[in-house]
Amino acid sequence: MHNSFGNIFKLTTFGESHGTAIGGIIDGCPAGILLDFEQIQTELNRRKPGQSKITTQRKEADEVIFLSGIFEGKTTGTPIGFQIQNTNQKSRDYTHNNEVFRPSHADFTYQKKYGIRDFRGGGRSSARETANWVVAGAIAKQVLKYFTTNKSITINAYTSSIGSIFLVKPYQDLDFGKVESNIVRCPDTKVAEEMISLIHKIRKEGDTIGGTVTCIAKNVPVGLGEPIFNKLQAQLAKAMFSINAVKGFEYGAGFCSTSMKGSNHNDLFYADGTTKTNLSGGIQGGISNGMDIYFRVAFKPVATIMQEQQTIDKDGNMVTLQGKGRHDPCVVPRAVPIVEALTALVLLDFLLLDKTRNTSV
Amino acid sequence: MHNSFGNIFKLTTFGESHGTAIGGIIDGCPAGILLDFEQIQTELNRRKPGQSKITTQRKEADEVIFLSGIFEGKTTGTPIGFQIQNTNQKSRDYTHNNEVFRPSHADFTYQKKYGIRDFRGGGRSSARETANWVVAGAIAKQVLKYFTTNKSITINAYTSSIGSIFLVKPYQDLDFGKVESNIVRCPDTKVAEEMISLIHKIRKEGDTIGGTVTCIAKNVPVGLGEPIFNKLQAQLAKAMFSINAVKGFEYGAGFCSTSMKGSNHNDLFYADGTTKTNLSGGIQGGISNGMDIYFRVAFKPVATIMQEQQTIDKDGNMVTLQGKGRHDPCVVPRAVPIVEALTALVLLDFLLLDKTRNTSV
Amino acid sequence: MHNSFGNIFKLTTFGESHGTAIGGIIDGCPAGILLDFEQIQTELNRRKPGQSKITTQRKEADEVIFLSGIFEGKTTGTPIGFQIQNTNQKSRDYTHNNEVFRPSHADFTYQKKYGIRDFRGGGRSSARETANWVVAGAIAKQVLKYFTTNKSITINAYTSSIGSIFLVKPYQDLDFGKVESNIVRCPDTKVAEEMISLIHKIRKEGDTIGGTVTCIAKNVPVGLGEPIFNKLQAQLAKAMFSINAVKGFEYGAGFCSTSMKGSNHNDLFYADGTTKTNLSGGIQGGISNGMDIYFRVAFKPVATIMQEQQTIDKDGNMVTLQGKGRHDPCVVPRAVPIVEALTALVLLDFLLLDKTRNTSV
Amino acid sequence: MHNSFGNIFKLTTFGESHGTAIGGIIDGCPAGILLDFEQIQTELNRRKPGQSKITTQRKEADEVIFLSGIFEGKTTGTPIGFQIQNTNQKSRDYTHNNEVFRPSHADFTYQKKYGIRDFRGGGRSSARETANWVVAGAIAKQVLKYFTTNKSITINAYTSSIGSIFLVKPYQDLDFGKVESNIVRCPDTKVAEEMISLIHKIRKEGDTIGGTVTCIAKNVPVGLGEPIFNKLQAQLAKAMFSINAVKGFEYGAGFCSTSMKGSNHNDLFYADGTTKTNLSGGIQGGISNGMDIYFRVAFKPVATIMQEQQTIDKDGNMVTLQGKGRHDPCVVPRAVPIVEALTALVLLDFLLLDKTRNTSV
Repeated sequence: MHNSFGNIFKLTTFGESHGTAIGGIIDGCPAGILLDFEQIQTELNRRKPGQSKITTQRKEADEVIFLSGIFEGKTTGTPIGFQIQNTNQKSRDYTHNNEVFRPSHADFTYQKKYGIRDFRGGGRSSARETANWVVAGAIAKQVLKYFTTNKSITINAYTSSIGSIFLVKPYQDLDFGKVESNIVRCPDTKVAEEMISLIHKIRKEGDTIGGTVTCIAKNVPVGLGEPIFNKLQAQLAKAMFSINAVKGFEYGAGFCSTSMKGSNHNDLFYADGTTKTNLSGGIQGGISNGMDIYFRVAFKPVATIMQEQQTIDKDGNMVTLQGKGRHDPCVVPRAVPIVEALTALVLLDFLLLDKTRNTSV
Repeated sequence: MHNSFGNIFKLTTFGESHGTAIGGIIDGCPAGILLDFEQIQTELNRRKPGQSKITTQRKEADEVIFLSGIFEGKTTGTPIGFQIQNTNQKSRDYTHNNEVFRPSHADFTYQKKYGIRDFRGGGRSSARETANWVVAGAIAKQVLKYFTTNKSITINAYTSSIGSIFLVKPYQDLDFGKVESNIVRCPDTKVAEEMISLIHKIRKEGDTIGGTVTCIAKNVPVGLGEPIFNKLQAQLAKAMFSINAVKGFEYGAGFCSTSMKGSNHNDLFYADGTTKTNLSGGIQGGISNGMDIYFRVAFKPVATIMQEQQTIDKDGNMVTLQGKGRHDPCVVPRAVPIVEALTALVLLDFLLLDKTRNTSV
Repeated sequence: MHNSFGNIFKLTTFGESHGTAIGGIIDGCPAGILLDFEQIQTELNRRKPGQSKITTQRKEADEVIFLSGIFEGKTTGTPIGFQIQNTNQKSRDYTHNNEVFRPSHADFTYQKKYGIRDFRGGGRSSARETANWVVAGAIAKQVLKYFTTNKSITINAYTSSIGSIFLVKPYQDLDFGKVESNIVRCPDTKVAEEMISLIHKIRKEGDTIGGTVTCIAKNVPVGLGEPIFNKLQAQLAKAMFSINAVKGFEYGAGFCSTSMKGSNHNDLFYADGTTKTNLSGGIQGGISNGMDIYFRVAFKPVATIMQEQQTIDKDGNMVTLQGKGRHDPCVVPRAVPIVEALTALVLLDFLLLDKTRNTSV
Repeated sequence: MHNSFGNIFKLTTFGESHGTAIGGIIDGCPAGILLDFEQIQTELNRRKPGQSKITTQRKEADEVIFLSGIFEGKTTGTPIGFQIQNTNQKSRDYTHNNEVFRPSHADFTYQKKYGIRDFRGGGRSSARETANWVVAGAIAKQVLKYFTTNKSITINAYTSSIGSIFLVKPYQDLDFGKVESNIVRCPDTKVAEEMISLIHKIRKEGDTIGGTVTCIAKNVPVGLGEPIFNKLQAQLAKAMFSINAVKGFEYGAGFCSTSMKGSNHNDLFYADGTTKTNLSGGIQGGISNGMDIYFRVAFKPVATIMQEQQTIDKDGNMVTLQGKGRHDPCVVPRAVPIVEALTALVLLDFLLLDKTRNTSV
């Protein structure tokens, strides 16, 4: 129950950062979907370490191997087992951390909860796990295409802020085609350059910085989401808070709505059921209303810094910790495909669930 | 699956705003808990309509009747069935809305998803449902006391902003004993008065206003939360986004953390495993670390306003809608006990789950 | 999790034999189903106590009240809350059993597991709970009709043995229309008379007797059931073993198949995919194959007898117990509608699940 | 949801008979369990093909590789990923079956349900999957030891009949130490020889034969099982009906109880709460009562026979099928460790669940 996500299209995962492999099982995938394996790998490459100078220099091939559930290139409806080898673990980098609890990491809580932990690279608490999600999300994106006739659902995330540098343009004015044109994944070239400069500066200081990712899903059909306790926004939030450094989530007008009046916030209808404004963010009562779904995810600065920090070991002795591993000065650019993947998982799952509500034969 | 919440301590609910009754079933409650029924009713009274001049004037007795699972005042370990009659429905107030989709309500999405809806008072999408949660949460609070030895877990929520009026004091400086001393549920008397004035003003305009609720859980033992996909913050977020008007959630430093550096954001340890700062908000890697858990929930302004609005009916005709029901100019004060109730449900559920991870006989 | 059944069409129940009421919540019911409430009551009447001289003389109105999820006679897709009052509890009959563990009842295990129990009439362990299942099953039967075009799925159970009196005719030679023509619910009038005589004789002895129920589901479409751990036969078995006195379940050739050779047991195909024989009982690999599904359920004799029995009380003292309540000499006739109800729940649930496997838009 | 088993100790599996590998993920395993890997392999060897002349001659190394969740030999509480390579698939044996539906196999139903299937060796419907269960069950057995103080839970299954040759001795008179002393896994040497002779004879005929497995769990603590819909016997039944050739399940007096009177069937108490007889099979009201749990599982004859059979291909043409693969003339001996494994999974799961019902801190 702890390591599974989804109701129908259900991902279950395993794996530690420096174990033999990570991987997962996708249960409930519809049969007969012709998979584009290159596309899956492309998504994995967007997330993988070592892709640019502003990400960790850890190198992982991150090649996914599929073990079941696919026959002659098509899904068979049986569980899809997959695996990604850990090829470049460099556990030695972490041996010295054995007895040490790194500040604002999960070392302390895992040790206290379980009484034992695979301390190498954060073990299970490492963001390496998110590679599994990207695999499942890439498949979900492909399945989604089978269920949409005219307009395919599109899911686009991008870096909307790094530190105090914000992309202020509304998403409607952005060209998502440019997200992959720069290493920070901000679709505005000029703002992207500022962001990259900031990350470079932060990295030189041996420090890290936070930021936000914004995500937009278009052409989502009306009716996805299952109130009361399986609302679309609630499941999206749950998904996003599964990502390691996430501290906040808002959709539609979000926190800004709290200082608005109802007369300004309400989205008035056109005759066709679309709305003139979309402060609701495409969801009413936990159910998609056909308008764009958009939300913003807050990422804290990475906890591993290259500066000295005082901390404690397992026995409560104060020790000095110096970051030695290969870490990201800012996780936000690599988080972009992760946010998209989880969004695809949520939307597909609700799309399949919605089919059980339909009385047509 | 749609109307259940929790893994072990599991609440399943039913009920429409203007049906015969609402209610629920609590499954997985430990046996032998002596219940304080007055305390349950007290919590319900905090949520109920008509309690003050800044809430809806709809009057409901909101008396909960327990139908099973309790014997001679104690829980028996079998499911607790409960029910709250709808005594004052005044469905006539809503009859005129039959064919009309109210802006920023769930009328449109329910109609489109299900092809049918109980339109009276919002039906299933009404916040009346949250009374069920308060019942379950009140029981959860009482069960929590059985599982804590020295210091009981305490859960305190309060109104931290209404519109642009913010309670800026840190929670550590507040006296939670004052939350119930005013009708807006803000523990700072002076700020409370400003908030109340604002709500009065807004109400006179026939308008509504949003706000935020902050919640603090103290004395939560280390180890609650089940990574990867059942993290404490993710389940809290999912719970909060189940509340009708919620648009945002953040914990610890939240959105503010996005502009911080790691060297500032990291919480350094004392020798005993507590931390000097607590920007993490009491959770690391999805698991409680023993520090205070705190989070903030954003509520949009209520969609029902007393001003005229243009909208559409089921057939796409433009019609003029004038709010006639009895509604809240601001839901935030009544949301305070709801946020607490959901927090209690989440914490108890994880506390019970954690017992399955322990190898001691 | 303990008191819920089903994946999509999910029933959650509550209630003790002598509490205020029993009831349940049906989640996941498709919207827009026009319900026939008389038919639901008819099914309840088939199960209810006091219906004939061979059942318990306890009288219960067993009238179900629906509290939600239905609007103008149709399901709305929201949870259906329902309730049956306990009107004729006569708890005094049971007071003397307070401290006594009745042999082969659940008194001992409930007391040991929970440390407390509602001892009145067996409390939660009473078969009174099955009335809830009949309500849900009656609705499931009606929903099933919406999902079948040419031939509706039919579900017919009947008493196939009482003690050593067996109905030996194959089900193909029976007229299910006669099941309700006699009080033992055996479609062969002559065998029914023998069964009734036996039950009368057993009752005069103050004793009880077991028997079997056979159930046949016809016109089940090919494809229901979700291997590996959600196989159609596994879920049917789980359902049947939820009934209080059930000790065995077999489908198709069942236990007889163990002494057969493969060359005799295999069902050979006709060109159209139907099979010449049906020893498989309509299921292959956990999935329905379109042939009749048939299975047999074994019921032990009722544990409450009107004879003196030596037993113990809570403190381990030997005491003499004399059955005084109003009990069934044989539960099998009343179990017939229960078996049908659970079968309907299982089939509908898999029918809805199967819709999530279909890639057609 | 389809390929997972268990509530807390949860196994999710993947894999086709002739794919790259099969495997699974165990979620919810308590932390700190020192695993005996040899013991796991020993259990796998009991199930593996080619182990004797009465099993299939397909050879598989069946070596399990663990990929996560274990650190320095101990479980860490994180998911345990494992994998078994398919080393000797000989898919060519099956190529000719591509378009053919084998009688009483799952070919037809998988094809119709999914529209596509991995036809090699039965694909997902192959009993090869059960190797995954044996791995998980072997771990469960080891975890069970940590939770029992005086007397460990023991789980012993054995072949109790092959065709019409029955082991009539009650289990109390058997020496379970002899189960592994012969290839048919019957603890009575003399009966075992008869069974082996029968299987040899059947094999020479190119035919197959069914049989039964009996299983006894001793020292199960009082209180396992979660009524109403998660009863111990119901979950055991569900587990057993997941095994490929199972057609029947009974526990305690089983089908025999149907012709008994209550006065004979009731188990009377001793003063200490144990019972003089145990026709109940160690379970009352869905909860273990501390007495031996025993049940019997019926296996049909294997569908693949070495004789010619008429059958159809995908297009409905009649074709002649001649069994060519390497198959078991009788699955019962290899089913013995599978029955034990599933029993261990069920008991451990309920043991962990029961910890959530206990209010002691």
